[in-house]
Amino acid sequence: MNKKAMYQLTYGLFVLTSRIGVKDHGCIINTAGQVTSSPNRISIAVNKDNLTHDVIMASRKFNLSILSEKADFEIFRHFGFQSGRTTDKFADYPFCRRSENGLFYLTEGTNAYISASVEQTIDLGSHTLFIAAVEDMDVLSAVPSATYAYYQSNIKPKPEKKAPSGKTTWRCTVCGYTYEGEELPADFVCPICKHPASDFEKVTDM
Amino acid sequence: MNKKAMYQLTYGLFVLTSRIGVKDHGCIINTAGQVTSSPNRISIAVNKDNLTHDVIMASRKFNLSILSEKADFEIFRHFGFQSGRTTDKFADYPFCRRSENGLFYLTEGTNAYISASVEQTIDLGSHTLFIAAVEDMDVLSAVPSATYAYYQSNIKPKPEKKAPSGKTTWRCTVCGYTYEGEELPADFVCPICKHPASDFEKVTDM
Repeated sequence: MNKKAMYQLTYGLFVLTSRIGVKDHGCIINTAGQVTSSPNRISIAVNKDNLTHDVIMASRKFNLSILSEKADFEIFRHFGFQSGRTTDKFADYPFCRRSENGLFYLTEGTNAYISASVEQTIDLGSHTLFIAAVEDMDVLSAVPSATYAYYQSNIKPKPEKKAPSGKTTWRCTVCGYTYEGEELPADFVCPICKHPASDFEKVTDM
Repeated sequence: MNKKAMYQLTYGLFVLTSRIGVKDHGCIINTAGQVTSSPNRISIAVNKDNLTHDVIMASRKFNLSILSEKADFEIFRHFGFQSGRTTDKFADYPFCRRSENGLFYLTEGTNAYISASVEQTIDLGSHTLFIAAVEDMDVLSAVPSATYAYYQSNIKPKPEKKAPSGKTTWRCTVCGYTYEGEELPADFVCPICKHPASDFEKVTDM
């Protein structure tokens, strides 16, 4: 069993947005795809730790903004590495517009958006899989979509390879967060991007 | 509503295989992704018109061979454009090996395979969404995974742009099949690759 086989699965990258009451929410996801074309439905898998998950559970609607190769790391930092529990991600965020369903979609670093209504939710433990009917969509740019592989090679800042002298650290390969310590607990979850211990690599001082 | 927004979703490409009785089956799919990492589960959406769909419904297990940029069009023709109802796709097919679960995976044009057991099926009308536990996997090559966009630009043969003189035809943008006639019926389904009328483009003689 070589767990690196999972890295060969191809993913796009998306800002998932929804709204409840007067507040808008958004997070980064990489699991979205069409599941039927007639009727046109998509599925998204969302980590329950994301506040946007709970908002969609309640509002039953979302926008999926498709990130393009022009997306910069700031979008990932803004929507992926902080929580709506402690900040309002859309307060003064200028690169967005409301679609007909009243939700925001992103206008910069994106090439399309899809508005969808939740039809079905499947509880998968750590995540909920949402099956949703596509209700509206538009193309925003002809720039190719960013794949997760493209993000890793071209968008994510290159980390320093060396740990501070004499210390062992573990680096999250998804967002770059570093954990200091000889051993990373097996049940460790990245506090920034919520990825598990298996996504960390050991960085030792050489 | 600009339906071309759907084309911006990123997909990988896979040969999905299973086995029932003494016969092995396989088809091409483009909808597979990890849905939870702990436990490690993937989802696949499979068109019910594919015989492999029925085989997995019965066998409850499958292999997903991840196609790489080295996959040639012959793999798509072999597994995607003919049916196991009229041919045995694995009779004399040399580029495969059995994994521990007894199913075939492809050894050429692939960069990894994943063996999975079905935990849950969700009926979506034209397709079934399978949620499956990953039981084994291996990396086969370091060649990048083929995206659907890569397939369109680099693997699929370029079609002739002109229709035969005086005739209007409709070409399936997925596999290249052409339908002859002024109007394509709205409920038309490509007999080769099962994609709907919305995936056809009109080709007129100029």
